[in-house]
Amino acid sequence: MAGGGTTYGWISLTTDYGRSDGFAAALHGVIARLSPAVRVIDVTHDVRPGDIARGAAVLAQTVPHLPPAVHVAVVDPGVGTARRAIALTTQNGVLVGPDNGLLPPAADALGGIVDAIELTNTAWHGATVSATFHGRDVFAPVAARLATGAPPNEAGDAIAADGLVRLPPPIVAAGVGYVEAEVLTVDRFGNVQLAASGEHLAALGDHVLVGGARAVRATTFADAPHGSLILFVDSAGHVAVAINGGRAVVALGVEPGDVVRVAAASP
Amino acid sequence: MAGGGTTYGWISLTTDYGRSDGFAAALHGVIARLSPAVRVIDVTHDVRPGDIARGAAVLAQTVPHLPPAVHVAVVDPGVGTARRAIALTTQNGVLVGPDNGLLPPAADALGGIVDAIELTNTAWHGATVSATFHGRDVFAPVAARLATGAPPNEAGDAIAADGLVRLPPPIVAAGVGYVEAEVLTVDRFGNVQLAASGEHLAALGDHVLVGGARAVRATTFADAPHGSLILFVDSAGHVAVAINGGRAVVALGVEPGDVVRVAAASP
Amino acid sequence: MAGGGTTYGWISLTTDYGRSDGFAAALHGVIARLSPAVRVIDVTHDVRPGDIARGAAVLAQTVPHLPPAVHVAVVDPGVGTARRAIALTTQNGVLVGPDNGLLPPAADALGGIVDAIELTNTAWHGATVSATFHGRDVFAPVAARLATGAPPNEAGDAIAADGLVRLPPPIVAAGVGYVEAEVLTVDRFGNVQLAASGEHLAALGDHVLVGGARAVRATTFADAPHGSLILFVDSAGHVAVAINGGRAVVALGVEPGDVVRVAAASP
Repeated sequence: MAGGGTTYGWISLTTDYGRSDGFAAALHGVIARLSPAVRVIDVTHDVRPGDIARGAAVLAQTVPHLPPAVHVAVVDPGVGTARRAIALTTQNGVLVGPDNGLLPPAADALGGIVDAIELTNTAWHGATVSATFHGRDVFAPVAARLATGAPPNEAGDAIAADGLVRLPPPIVAAGVGYVEAEVLTVDRFGNVQLAASGEHLAALGDHVLVGGARAVRATTFADAPHGSLILFVDSAGHVAVAINGGRAVVALGVEPGDVVRVAAASP
Repeated sequence: MAGGGTTYGWISLTTDYGRSDGFAAALHGVIARLSPAVRVIDVTHDVRPGDIARGAAVLAQTVPHLPPAVHVAVVDPGVGTARRAIALTTQNGVLVGPDNGLLPPAADALGGIVDAIELTNTAWHGATVSATFHGRDVFAPVAARLATGAPPNEAGDAIAADGLVRLPPPIVAAGVGYVEAEVLTVDRFGNVQLAASGEHLAALGDHVLVGGARAVRATTFADAPHGSLILFVDSAGHVAVAINGGRAVVALGVEPGDVVRVAAASP
Repeated sequence: MAGGGTTYGWISLTTDYGRSDGFAAALHGVIARLSPAVRVIDVTHDVRPGDIARGAAVLAQTVPHLPPAVHVAVVDPGVGTARRAIALTTQNGVLVGPDNGLLPPAADALGGIVDAIELTNTAWHGATVSATFHGRDVFAPVAARLATGAPPNEAGDAIAADGLVRLPPPIVAAGVGYVEAEVLTVDRFGNVQLAASGEHLAALGDHVLVGGARAVRATTFADAPHGSLILFVDSAGHVAVAINGGRAVVALGVEPGDVVRVAAASP
């Protein structure tokens, strides 16, 4: 099943399927049948159902740490409609999923899109394709073939990268003594990750207000007294807010998409 | 550890152990020790504790998409009692677990039972067998041996397939202009899967009432206006009810085992 | 990447990262990049955030059932502070994680600590080490190198095993006709595991009071009437309390760390 394409030892999976049903396992099964030597890394199956922005953020922040792979991502409220199924080739792997904004941030994190293909070659899909489970019937079979070296340009028709659906860029607005930034994600610990990056903090000094509340600049959680709001640069390079021993998301009362203001304060 | 039996490259696991404890990992560990070349696919460990019908439904709907494998399933409220431990050989894999109704639907999905064995050969079990964790001490060790080619008939005594415990078949009753069908499962998206199959819908036309509420016949979720109740044939071939952008299980107020009436309506 | 050390085919992961974010997948990714032939078993990622005692208990009770491995455990509220990063070599595997009490019970379960190393060799760490994600940047890279045969003593400086941080031993106090024991864990089924072991029960007879309520001595769940409180020796060798068809943790109203009194009762 080879022929000119790059081979990949790994396929990663990022979906909103949960783990209570057999959906994620069906993807594992399809991959095991078509490309038994390929191994699978589950990024997460716990994206909130239909939350494309969340899926895109987790995928983009995780792929840099994975080996070269075919990355399958399925958060796909438009499954079965005219939305396109696509594969994006980068210098460091291939992304496979719906054309709904989910994949481009990860493509950027992998060095940018080299080629974009619409998955129109139905010979690569499952024998029957359901209207509601393209993860099993389209994306996983295509990923298995790509991982074993089938060339991406045989998966379908070349399409223009600048015609792909993209999510609106997150809001980041910096001024004198402040930065306003959108909440990108909230992690399991209740830490609130902002779209701002480390350099936005440089101008603000060590004493800051986050959403009006005093916070301490720190490098790690235990650098502040128990219960204190902490502003730090997280492991993905983003500004984030935490509470030593607590959940910042509760203290701030925000959710992804909200905008948080971080401003210089007097000592 | 071979000898006449089929070998399998894969073992699948379906349990109600959850993933917060180390129980599922202990199964992985036992398999890794006894059959290190075999790879494991987790179907799910999130079956509601003791919910045999749910485990049976997820297993039966997932195994057709897995590679040839030994499928271990453990939803086992009678662990340690006189309920039998069994292995069911089919044309497309072996099922291992308790004789409580959990396995036969999957055996049917794999082409039917060829041989049934009670796992009485204690030489295949763990060195010590606890009274409460037969997944670790009986089912996983037996599965590992079967996967490496040990013949099923050496796992214990042949038993009659028609003497196996079977769950009552789900209710499906079709009449003129309606079908009444039991709820089989509710998935992560809140979609309600009924025991009825696609052909039951053919006679009802495009306008239907589901539990008295108007619904639209559709092939995928986005075929109906946001908030509309949708009746479709799901990726497992069952009639299912969804809401575009919502959770049908909440709108219908049902749970597995309840009976839902789908009836033809005027346009 | 070899050199004198033992090689391991497996790395296990025990963390409080959850599975909603990409953190656990990043560990898989780092391991796949550095030691692609090594396979990973997820013990659990669902330790309650920061709950070192819970992580220690799950890890210690699971490792005896895993193949020889490098076991990575990360429940690490002090990440980025002066708490040490360590590797503990035992006769049956190596443990890697923070020096905060998480690892020693598992080391004991694997036969005891042979050597303890502080992970001061930064050449083994990630190219950049974040202040908040040592799982990805320190522990996983070190584990990957150890699994491929790099000798533990090259990971850093030898330290004294008796200087390691240890959790206080759980309370177990036996007297005439009773034993008082701390709750170690509560599992997915609501079963309450006590620090007492089977021999503590021998003196109490078949009729007991658990926290003042009548319970039945049994070997498995179905040995008692539906709804009855059961006292049994669980699959890890600990005294545990269950309810046939219910959740003992609710009936007892306890949580890990609480002390439960088990006393002989009249028939």
